[in-house]
Amino acid sequence: MKNPNNLWKKARKIIPGGNGLLSKRPDRYSPNKWPTYYKKSKSVFITDLNGNKYLDMAQMGMGTCVAGYANEYIDTIVKKNITNGVNSTLNSIEEFNLAKKILKFDKFADQVKFARGGGEAMALAIRLARAETKKEKILFSGYHGWHDWYLAANILDKDNLNQHLLEGLDPLGIPKKLINSAMGFEYNNINELKKISKKNVAAIVIEGCRYSYPQKNFVKTLNDICKKNKICLIIDEITSGWRIQPGGIYKKLKINPDIVVYGKALGNGYAISAIVGRKKYLSNAEKSFMSSTAWTERVGFVAAEALIDFFVKNKIHNHIDKLGKKILSGWKKIAKKHELNLTTSKIPHLCTFFLKYKNNDTLYTFFTNEMLKKNILASNSIYLSFGHKEKHINKYLKACDEIFKEMKKKITKKEKFDNIKPRYQGFNRLTK
Amino acid sequence: MKNPNNLWKKARKIIPGGNGLLSKRPDRYSPNKWPTYYKKSKSVFITDLNGNKYLDMAQMGMGTCVAGYANEYIDTIVKKNITNGVNSTLNSIEEFNLAKKILKFDKFADQVKFARGGGEAMALAIRLARAETKKEKILFSGYHGWHDWYLAANILDKDNLNQHLLEGLDPLGIPKKLINSAMGFEYNNINELKKISKKNVAAIVIEGCRYSYPQKNFVKTLNDICKKNKICLIIDEITSGWRIQPGGIYKKLKINPDIVVYGKALGNGYAISAIVGRKKYLSNAEKSFMSSTAWTERVGFVAAEALIDFFVKNKIHNHIDKLGKKILSGWKKIAKKHELNLTTSKIPHLCTFFLKYKNNDTLYTFFTNEMLKKNILASNSIYLSFGHKEKHINKYLKACDEIFKEMKKKITKKEKFDNIKPRYQGFNRLTK
Repeated sequence: MKNPNNLWKKARKIIPGGNGLLSKRPDRYSPNKWPTYYKKSKSVFITDLNGNKYLDMAQMGMGTCVAGYANEYIDTIVKKNITNGVNSTLNSIEEFNLAKKILKFDKFADQVKFARGGGEAMALAIRLARAETKKEKILFSGYHGWHDWYLAANILDKDNLNQHLLEGLDPLGIPKKLINSAMGFEYNNINELKKISKKNVAAIVIEGCRYSYPQKNFVKTLNDICKKNKICLIIDEITSGWRIQPGGIYKKLKINPDIVVYGKALGNGYAISAIVGRKKYLSNAEKSFMSSTAWTERVGFVAAEALIDFFVKNKIHNHIDKLGKKILSGWKKIAKKHELNLTTSKIPHLCTFFLKYKNNDTLYTFFTNEMLKKNILASNSIYLSFGHKEKHINKYLKACDEIFKEMKKKITKKEKFDNIKPRYQGFNRLTK
Repeated sequence: MKNPNNLWKKARKIIPGGNGLLSKRPDRYSPNKWPTYYKKSKSVFITDLNGNKYLDMAQMGMGTCVAGYANEYIDTIVKKNITNGVNSTLNSIEEFNLAKKILKFDKFADQVKFARGGGEAMALAIRLARAETKKEKILFSGYHGWHDWYLAANILDKDNLNQHLLEGLDPLGIPKKLINSAMGFEYNNINELKKISKKNVAAIVIEGCRYSYPQKNFVKTLNDICKKNKICLIIDEITSGWRIQPGGIYKKLKINPDIVVYGKALGNGYAISAIVGRKKYLSNAEKSFMSSTAWTERVGFVAAEALIDFFVKNKIHNHIDKLGKKILSGWKKIAKKHELNLTTSKIPHLCTFFLKYKNNDTLYTFFTNEMLKKNILASNSIYLSFGHKEKHINKYLKACDEIFKEMKKKITKKEKFDNIKPRYQGFNRLTK
């Protein structure tokens, strides 16, 4: 019997933070109760180190595995390429093939550059924007990763990024010289976008979407401002891309991007990211030095090619849309039934519910703990995949019904939530 | 029949630079003659798109595939893990296992953080140094990748980095505010190292080695200066690590690092990199935000674990040492025999020969072209691997003998090297 809490404690001693990704930390779900480590993932199921099998109604590898874990179509192709060598002194023709394939879905774009991580790809996009415009300042409106250009926004005040997914990011180790080089604004806030100075601005960056779509007027203003001021418009589709539709959601929203960045779902769990954009910007990669051995390994290219083919053939976006709508309306219906103070996000492909209580985090953790008892991994956000079927959603919503009922009972009777160590969603605090 | 030159031209239209890694560009070897793309790589052989099979006496995937291409021991483990899912909402226990394994070889260190690319890992190391010291300036003495912190050295003068592997890197797109935040010095130059100001210096970065080992006095000075001035000593072992000995060459050289960075060989062609160091520095990763979904994919961890086991069991460093010495002495002997003006690097694990003629690049390209006729991929540098055997070296040296003879004849008779489009080793120029 392996104790995941002990393993996590040991891991934290030799890996700062315990792992490489904040949102895979157990304290973001339920400290001490979360299974933390996996042995096997297949379709929508995860088996932990002790052989317990869970239905994943949580993150699906933080949104990477949109075609389901260990997808056979994709993995068969990857394994064949491993047999034929994933690296070589010569180039993977699949890099070229993947670029061609992506450009079929991103008609506005002329060129593609590949990296491995999402944050890494965003740093390249920023470089390209600065190189072309010869300007330096970046305006942004979302979460865009760990790089200096982004965290520089917190040099002046470490709460500047608080509205962008993660609170309290300390700009420790970011050169102070970068002060005022990046500045956040509220997503979908037309007035703020209009008001903010456009002087020396190289790029405006927004996420395709997260909890809701932008208003039409916001999009129009964004397009107009970028055109008028010769600002590079970068859409971070690392979360939204290859999920809500083939390619990026910018198309549906009528955004006119200069650069679009994909990651996460593009490789169905294999590390690959893409910077897709107009030649005007992308061609600067021939002048400003950007080169990495890791970017030319073959696995990422073939996994992404296979994901695109599988996604399009099976219309994964429609599948997720249908199931996501069922979840959003299910949550609302059940919450109403139990008179629970709950709202939801708007987009079926990125389902989140929000409780409105003082002890929210205790309640979310209660929810997670009760779900774990039913062998379901869950928090208040769900990434769906092609592996999810109606029956999984039905099982999950039945569980929600039972847990919401229990939760409401406890709230009403002012019962204590015993033995619950509440989750922590910020950055710094680590469960000791 | 596929024409690699046409494919490359087409690729360059939609991928700026044609690919993701400068040193895989055909113009660095022989424009128009280099096979450019591969279909299969196995052991030390590469098959191009037309089925031509070459012995790789050049780069072995830019030094990544130290255990040979498509190594069966490593790939069997990787494939098994693919079947069991490469990603999940829960964490790979292999991340923890790999950290433990690495620390067995890096006794000075307490903690490990993983990324995918080498340049990416260096950017993390720099962040950690700046976070701990609260200082900002970086002194360096090698090639350390594409990130802003490094290219900032060229803001003042774009030739500043010329002595560090690549000439003429334009700091295009790097914020000008970063001026004077990074500065290069000559590897192994004690006087320069002593003279250079240590004010506000967060880190000194050197490559473990490239063409020769540092002098003992240089190492001593380096250790002393860092200790005295509380400067973080970072050893970039992306090229030298897991090649010259298990772990880093810093051990043999008696360097006292604070942080060591591995990449390339660590994954035998799969993308994985590691920042290994003292807790004092590494623990800053719990305070300064560093997080990426791509860093938690399982393939990189299991490939690196397998490479370490295979490397140690087979003493790959000794194997390479023996073959490398044979090549270095072979080159010298043959050059002497044909009275060719040639010198070599000192380290058997990183063999390079240098010609001393005005038309060097034409001669190197002549060498490459003649080798291609013999179905050998070659330039003036070789990364060896466990797949290379005595017979391959013998075959290669026999070919060198014939080509050096021919080269000398042409030089002596002042014959023209017809139809040779010379290679270009810098950054900017791209073969049209």
